[in-house]
Formats: sequence, C-alpha cells, structure tokens
Amino acid sequence: MAAEPVAILDPEDERIAPFRAIREKDLVGRRGLFIAEGTVVLRVLSQAHGKGRFVADRILVLENRLAGVADVLAGFPDDIPVYVCGSAVMNAIAGFDMHRGVLALGRVSESPSPAGMIATLPDNALVAVAVGLSNHDNAGGIFRNATAFGADAVLLDETSCDPLYRKALRVSVGSVLKMPWSRRGSGAEILTALDAAGFQVVTLSPAGEDALHTLRPDRRTALVLGTEGEGLPLDILKAFRPVRIPQSPGLDSLNVATAAGIALYQLALSTGRIG
Amino acid sequence: MAAEPVAILDPEDERIAPFRAIREKDLVGRRGLFIAEGTVVLRVLSQAHGKGRFVADRILVLENRLAGVADVLAGFPDDIPVYVCGSAVMNAIAGFDMHRGVLALGRVSESPSPAGMIATLPDNALVAVAVGLSNHDNAGGIFRNATAFGADAVLLDETSCDPLYRKALRVSVGSVLKMPWSRRGSGAEILTALDAAGFQVVTLSPAGEDALHTLRPDRRTALVLGTEGEGLPLDILKAFRPVRIPQSPGLDSLNVATAAGIALYQLALSTGRIG
Repeated sequence: MAAEPVAILDPEDERIAPFRAIREKDLVGRRGLFIAEGTVVLRVLSQAHGKGRFVADRILVLENRLAGVADVLAGFPDDIPVYVCGSAVMNAIAGFDMHRGVLALGRVSESPSPAGMIATLPDNALVAVAVGLSNHDNAGGIFRNATAFGADAVLLDETSCDPLYRKALRVSVGSVLKMPWSRRGSGAEILTALDAAGFQVVTLSPAGEDALHTLRPDRRTALVLGTEGEGLPLDILKAFRPVRIPQSPGLDSLNVATAAGIALYQLALSTGRIG
Repeated sequence: MAAEPVAILDPEDERIAPFRAIREKDLVGRRGLFIAEGTVVLRVLSQAHGKGRFVADRILVLENRLAGVADVLAGFPDDIPVYVCGSAVMNAIAGFDMHRGVLALGRVSESPSPAGMIATLPDNALVAVAVGLSNHDNAGGIFRNATAFGADAVLLDETSCDPLYRKALRVSVGSVLKMPWSRRGSGAEILTALDAAGFQVVTLSPAGEDALHTLRPDRRTALVLGTEGEGLPLDILKAFRPVRIPQSPGLDSLNVATAAGIALYQLALSTGRIG
C-alpha cells in the first residue's frame, strides 16, 4: 500500500528538489537518477520496483490527478513518499505546463557490461543492438518494439543516448523498466562479444543483397541498428553482411525505430517466436 | 532558377507575415496554407510545385543557411520570392529558436472526395486509411511508411488531423507532398466506397483471429488504422473482420505508425509489391 500523500505548497521545498532536473535537457548530474512521467510509466515502475535495476525514490502528483492514479499508487510500498501539489507548484518545478501531472523519481543501478548482459541470455535469443543512437524518441520506440516482439534484451553502445531519459521512457510506454538492457562498451566490443556467444549478427542496409525475410535466422540472433541518418559505420557493415528491408526504390530510408519494429517482427516470425 | 533573395530586416514586414502562423498550434485561419520546414521537405516541395495539389508561395531562409540550400532553391521557378533574414528576425517570427532556419509557405487545393481519390487508383492497389487519427507525428509516420512500401494513396477521414501540419509534414520527410491523399468524409463513407470498388478492407486488432502474414491479399487492399489508444470503432471492426500483428502477449499495442509500417511491409510482401 502507498504512503499517505504529503502536500507541498512551496516549489522550493527540498523534498521535491530532484524533480527540478526535469528542466535540464541533458543528464549532467543526474547519473543514476531518472524521471518517470505519466500514469502508464508509473504503473510499470510500481511493477519493476526493487526487482531488478530500478527503484522508485519518490512520487509527485498534481492534486486533481490524485484520485485518478490511486490504484497505481497502491502498487508502491508505503516507504516511497508521495507528494501532492497544485498546478502552480507543478509548473514552477517543471518549468513548463505539466499537463500530465504524474511524476516519479527513480534510481537505477549501474549498467551491466555487454558480456554480463549476454551471459544472462537463453539459448534461443533475439536481441536488439543500438550503435550511436542519438534520438530519445527512437530509443523509446526501439524498446517498445523489442518488447512487442519478445526480444530478450537491448544492448546499447556507450555513445547511444540514455533510454531512461524522460521522453525515451515515456515513448517506450515504460518498457525500458521491463526489458533487460545494457549501455556500455563500443559497438565493436558488443558485436564481437555477441559473435563469440554464437549470435548471428544481422545488420540492415538499403544496399543489402538479400531481403530480410529470406534470411534463415539462427537460434541466437542480434539485430544491429545504427545512427539516425548515417546508419551503421562501414567497418561494421563490412564485417557483418547486411540484409535489406525491401521497399520502394529511390526513397529516404525508414525511421530507425520503425525499421527496428519491422525487422524484429520479421525475425520473430522467421524464428517462430511469434505466429 | 530561383528568385534573387530579398533581405528582410523587420519581423513585422508584411511579406513574411504568413510565416507567423507557425506560432499557432491549431490551423484556424490557415485553411489552404501550410508551412514546410527544413531542407528535406523544401526539396520535395520544389519537386511537387505546380504538378498536383501543391504550390510554393514564398520561401524564408536564415542568412547563414542560404549557401547550404542554394541547390534546393535552384529547383524553384523565379516567380517564387525568396526572403533572407538574420536569427533575430527568424526567432521573432517563429516565436522560438528556429535552428533549422529553412521555411516555405505553401498552398494546397481542396482535398478530393474519397470516391474521387479511389477513382484514380490502379487495378492493383494498396492504400492506407486513417480513421480518427489525432497525432501529427503518427500522421507523418504513416505517410513515410506508406511511401516506403509503395502504397498508392492514403485516405484520411474528416476527423483525422491534417498531414500538412508542420510537424506531420516534417516527420513524413516530405512524403505528404508526393503521396496522393484525401481528407474528407467519414470512416464509414470511405470504407463503403473502398468496398464497392473491390477493395479487401483489412483492419487490425490484437484480438484478430488470423495473423496478418497468413492473409492472402486481393489485388486491391486497404489497410485501416484507428485512433491512438482507442483503436477502430467497434462497428468498423464488426463489419470487417480484423487480423492481428502477432506479438508477445499481455502488452500495450504497437504505436499506430509502427503498426502501419509493419502491416504495409507485410501486405506489400504478400502481394509481391516488394521483395
């Protein structure tokens, strides 16, 4: 059962100070902390709390939203403080009009290494790998799609953006808190480790000779996604023969999160993971 | 060849007054006008200009971007005015920091009726239909995906959002200016007209009995997409037996633009449109 809500009347109240980080565009100084926003993500956080890498630290709800989220709050243990405020305080904290009015501060433990992550994977495994992914919407979309098609993990290289960033977490509909993932090491390190662990490494390129649906995936398959715009570095494309998602000629390629969705759908289908 | 650029020093200059519409969140008073933003969309506008429903009216470029977009501007006839301004004027117009600094005002003629749109379609046709689509990102994403998989048209009902809205147009990477589309009539009117024109009407629902990839599509296939969150109205789902995109159980459904991408990929593959 949740804690009794405590009213906050002053935007400078120290108990809600960490929520001011929501104004920061970058994550400097927020290492190990994240902001969960909205009812959907808060519900997932209540389910993830204390079971893996994530814990809820405190919750802040707009007073007129309190009744609406009562069942979600009930999912948290009563040692997690719940603060309630009016819209003036909420807007002063968030620095913009905070319609959703449901925020939680969470803490995350250190990312496992790629090797550590891979060691936890089953014999039949499908993973998504992101190298140099820079857009938070796309990071969230990749997690949502990986979850939809039953992937076992997402491995991001150290240059990819943080999937716990507020917007990414929201776009993922909270799946960043459910799906096992790591964000460490270089793309080359991750792919070498996957290769050594018996993974078929699948890269995508419009110039790929074979179409994705003609591929016969191995029991362990890793789909590699590159930077928006640039795609994957040439050395990675050279080392692992790319396949293509067939599409109309002469067009801009698909958005990377959409490409991930289509490729994971096809790989999940080809391996009998879905059907 | 493009017009000689004209410098604008005053944000209140009447020649750039229509760009102030970029500040308006809704489209009131902008009927028939749209804002194209960024180099990618501007290039598509130059190709679409005067050939179908779209014409460019005027262009506004930040002075430090002028050299970079010279080749795009060269694609416009010289009766389209090109205005150039500094960042102070650009920011005063846009009401926010306008990093991209490349804007065009366009005009669009009235939408064809659903029947008029359908009458233009070939014997072998794949179309996407949107009913009650409310999110501009998703509208743009659906056009991008429809273009990628060679759809012949997109039909939106009158309650769906305007795909020419600045953000939708940008997310579509300009494909809203290439893909034939209509935005008129109710969902029921559109589907009845498609049905009468021999289209197999494919709706999606997680509760659909058959999986999408087991469907044998007809020569004329229409994929119907519903509102974010709510999905399609029950009467439409009852009238046209839904299929499902197979996925892991117990999850939030896919984002509607991603679902459109996956379904159009699968339908294009099943019909041999791509391969």
